[in-house]
Amino acid sequence: MSASGRTPAGAGEDAFLERLVAARDEAPDLIVPIGDDAAVFRPPAGMDVVVAADAIAEGVHFFAGTDPFLIGRKALAVNLSDIAAMGAVPRFLFATASLPQGFAPEFADRVTAGLRSLAAEHGVLLAGGDTITHDGPFGLSVTVVGYVERDGAIRRDGARPGDVVAVTGALGGSLASGRHLSFEPQLKVGRLLRASGPPSAMMDVSDGLLLDLDRLCRRSGVGAVLEAEAIPIHADVLAGPGDPLERALTDGEDFVLLFTASPEAFGRIRAVLKDDPTPIKIGEISTVPGIRIRTGGVERGVEPRGYVHG
Amino acid sequence: MSASGRTPAGAGEDAFLERLVAARDEAPDLIVPIGDDAAVFRPPAGMDVVVAADAIAEGVHFFAGTDPFLIGRKALAVNLSDIAAMGAVPRFLFATASLPQGFAPEFADRVTAGLRSLAAEHGVLLAGGDTITHDGPFGLSVTVVGYVERDGAIRRDGARPGDVVAVTGALGGSLASGRHLSFEPQLKVGRLLRASGPPSAMMDVSDGLLLDLDRLCRRSGVGAVLEAEAIPIHADVLAGPGDPLERALTDGEDFVLLFTASPEAFGRIRAVLKDDPTPIKIGEISTVPGIRIRTGGVERGVEPRGYVHG
Repeated sequence: MSASGRTPAGAGEDAFLERLVAARDEAPDLIVPIGDDAAVFRPPAGMDVVVAADAIAEGVHFFAGTDPFLIGRKALAVNLSDIAAMGAVPRFLFATASLPQGFAPEFADRVTAGLRSLAAEHGVLLAGGDTITHDGPFGLSVTVVGYVERDGAIRRDGARPGDVVAVTGALGGSLASGRHLSFEPQLKVGRLLRASGPPSAMMDVSDGLLLDLDRLCRRSGVGAVLEAEAIPIHADVLAGPGDPLERALTDGEDFVLLFTASPEAFGRIRAVLKDDPTPIKIGEISTVPGIRIRTGGVERGVEPRGYVHG
Repeated sequence: MSASGRTPAGAGEDAFLERLVAARDEAPDLIVPIGDDAAVFRPPAGMDVVVAADAIAEGVHFFAGTDPFLIGRKALAVNLSDIAAMGAVPRFLFATASLPQGFAPEFADRVTAGLRSLAAEHGVLLAGGDTITHDGPFGLSVTVVGYVERDGAIRRDGARPGDVVAVTGALGGSLASGRHLSFEPQLKVGRLLRASGPPSAMMDVSDGLLLDLDRLCRRSGVGAVLEAEAIPIHADVLAGPGDPLERALTDGEDFVLLFTASPEAFGRIRAVLKDDPTPIKIGEISTVPGIRIRTGGVERGVEPRGYVHG
């Protein structure tokens, strides 16, 4: 049944798991830590629980040959970016790894080190996991559990006509430059936006601004008009080929926050988030469905397009 | 970057995900359902939160050619078995699927149908997920979130000398017979054990009785003596080759519950759980480390061995 049949306990992936258990994270709100059938935790009073689940795989989200430390880090980072986009605080992480046949233990250790390093930066505890060996490339599926104030999560479907459309950082060139492996998930920014605005809707930019804004608009039943001159283009784009604006709109893997807010809420946000980063207004929500871009006073409709992980 | 480069939105896996979102589960305790950056839920007052995360992959947990409905079902069932082993109630499910290149949409739909069918049986809502296409076999990573009464989860590390060792069903032959694909996770049994005993320690039998009991004993700092004549051997074993007792002890993938309880608690359990299933006493917890088996009054030590998913 198993690709390698019966194997003695303690070999390969079991040893990997045992190393995780041996160095297990403990905390008062983690009632049953890693190493049991399931983890048990106790959310603080007055908090809702937030769960993000995202997988990454070789050949899709990173190339063979990528430093496994960065692979582990990215698998967690994309999930933390989702938690940030809810205005929430991450707390626990669960990881299931699909290891290729004959994987090197050092590879698995480096992946774990990358996960743990970013987790430690944000007070996230490893609370569970599983590893399997299969006839395929390395893959890592991560679930992050966090907390947000009761009814305080920022959804995608709250954008209203007249709202400001804004992003929390420059766009484009993330894949080509390798920034997609080392970006900092904007957890603090997400919390400050929630506390100061709050935004009417929010998500992170993973598949490109056009595609992600279109999703937010569809969920909210609105459209948007972008100001071409206002789109912040990342320096990583300017070094590469292609039209810079087009690349900023469609490259994807930016992992900045895209949000909408009433003009009043946006004023409050700007008063709190003054720099590092400064939220940048890039357009407005409209009653007309679809995305349009205004360049020198001329509007044109654009098809939502971007980077879809295939 | 992507194995298939840029693909238009809505193609392949994106369409798969959209079908999930279109048929999304909603409930009062699911504050933000599938389709946002993350799901948000609100645990009932007085309950701890339980999280199990387990992955299954082709060639390891099922063969190529297995009905994808049963694959989806099993990916959830193994996690529900973990939730049962905590004495908890499952509530939400998160699934990340790794799809082979050029997968048939019908395949993905059948997997989802299998997941949803078992989920519906147990009141479990699909609350999030992700799909990727990779150069490998089909794999499915599932996280199940559930609830258990505050400080009421049954752990692995509470077994004490003099406790009864018991199982909630017959052992062996699960892989050979295909039972591993269609077993019923013992959620109701887990709840009744918790409410009537409770057990001092509990886990589910996934890698074989010897190996799993050894894990429970190590975590509890004790040993165990099994009565060979008391081990319930599944009828699926009797049809196949090999020594029936040996197979019951080591085949694995049984997904019954293994628990320990003081003689008094075991009496209460037997008064409540009279049949379907009857918990069967198979031995006793001892102060002497390791597992021994008694046959006709003669004890011998055994090496923990079983089915380790390789």
